[in-house]
Amino acid sequence: MPIILACLLLSACGSLPQSPPGTLAKPSDTTTSRLIPLTSSEGEQLLYGSRAKQDFLPLSMHFVSQQNLAYCGAASMTMVLNALNIPAPIDPVYVRFPMFTQNNVFNAKTDRVVNSETIAKQGMTLDQLGGMLATYPVATQVYHAGDSSLEQFRKLAVENLKQPGNFILVNYLRTSLGQQTSGHISPIGAYDQAGDQFLILDVARFKYPPVWVKTEALWRAMNTIDDASGKTRGFVSVSRTATLDPGH
Amino acid sequence: MPIILACLLLSACGSLPQSPPGTLAKPSDTTTSRLIPLTSSEGEQLLYGSRAKQDFLPLSMHFVSQQNLAYCGAASMTMVLNALNIPAPIDPVYVRFPMFTQNNVFNAKTDRVVNSETIAKQGMTLDQLGGMLATYPVATQVYHAGDSSLEQFRKLAVENLKQPGNFILVNYLRTSLGQQTSGHISPIGAYDQAGDQFLILDVARFKYPPVWVKTEALWRAMNTIDDASGKTRGFVSVSRTATLDPGH
Ligand SMILES: [Ca+2]
Ligand SMILES: [Ca+2]
Ligand SMILES: [Ca+2]
Ligand SMILES: [Ca+2]
Repeated sequence: MPIILACLLLSACGSLPQSPPGTLAKPSDTTTSRLIPLTSSEGEQLLYGSRAKQDFLPLSMHFVSQQNLAYCGAASMTMVLNALNIPAPIDPVYVRFPMFTQNNVFNAKTDRVVNSETIAKQGMTLDQLGGMLATYPVATQVYHAGDSSLEQFRKLAVENLKQPGNFILVNYLRTSLGQQTSGHISPIGAYDQAGDQFLILDVARFKYPPVWVKTEALWRAMNTIDDASGKTRGFVSVSRTATLDPGH
Repeated sequence: MPIILACLLLSACGSLPQSPPGTLAKPSDTTTSRLIPLTSSEGEQLLYGSRAKQDFLPLSMHFVSQQNLAYCGAASMTMVLNALNIPAPIDPVYVRFPMFTQNNVFNAKTDRVVNSETIAKQGMTLDQLGGMLATYPVATQVYHAGDSSLEQFRKLAVENLKQPGNFILVNYLRTSLGQQTSGHISPIGAYDQAGDQFLILDVARFKYPPVWVKTEALWRAMNTIDDASGKTRGFVSVSRTATLDPGH
């Protein structure tokens, strides 16, 4: 019983427990790609040398740790909505100062997409992430890996990382990257062209630092089946709508 | 009564309510220096152009918002201890993963310096900040502005910002910078030599983004009397002790 509970908790961030589907990703068959932590000199140099890091500073200023093991999506939503400067609700801990937090990012509208009790138990799927973000005044686009391609992901993500006012969230299978464990959601902050790798700003800061991941490895980790939806994982783009912020 | 409560809450971060002492700082008499937010293009360029920003990434990876209006010191301690990779206690919200949080950074040892109930009501003084940090395996040095000088602060802080494994926390009077309100504590992340200004990673993220502050303006804001101690504010240096991490 304690084992089942631990298993549910640890796999809760983005999907139910699962074994990696053999036809889509074979993390046990392939050498897992080396992840370069941003805490290393190499990782730092890659960031400072990147020409597609427009999203890094706005996100890092709002970097938060998911506040429980199922809230990777909640933490990612919070970071992106704050970084986009979307009008925020009040969280009573900050008295009169509005800010998105993991306590107030879910509301009656997001509950209609999926209620927060369900998320607290099993996390959220890619479509639920996109659907909840779309309840805010932002434009969102959901890309399931099965309906997209590595080339499309790289192109869209690199363009996005060069532009202010929009962000990319990735939903991937951690074990496919050699990390523990199951499905996960986090924003990306930069792209390194020479090494063809993306910087994931992992919201489980108590487990992993931000890491650079090869595009191919990240794509493989997104191109996995989420048992909670029966669909592949993937990525979401989120941008301020023109009417909200015409000056940008 | 509601007015008194608001006043106590708002002035709680680092000191009791006070009026700026006339002999040390005259924020109402002088033009307040322009603060450049890191959210602006200019602020970003200053960071990327800085040659003293070694502390920025380790701190930004652990950036947190003070979780109540009195916890600027708690949030700053949390960031620095995590960035120094000091062995951390468990916070039950992260199950088995150790990490410093504002829930676990205070303990029986720090309570002997000042108990956390007092901090929750009125924040902490510079000496209390240094004393609580010193209960951890780090070397700390407290500098009251009244016993130091602008030149010493600039020299020590710039050197520190070029080195890994150590950090500077500043304790200053917000109103002296034209901000709201009273005493505050936050770590600094970078120095811009051309503009002679420091980047404050303000832990009240719900109020202010990180800002670049001229050394002279920051010094003036530190060289103010904290009524809770009767002494000037100032800064603290914190570093890993050699025995803990001989490899660095
Ligand atoms: Ca919308
Ligand atoms: Ca972007
Ligand atoms: Ca010590
Ligand atoms: Ca340093």
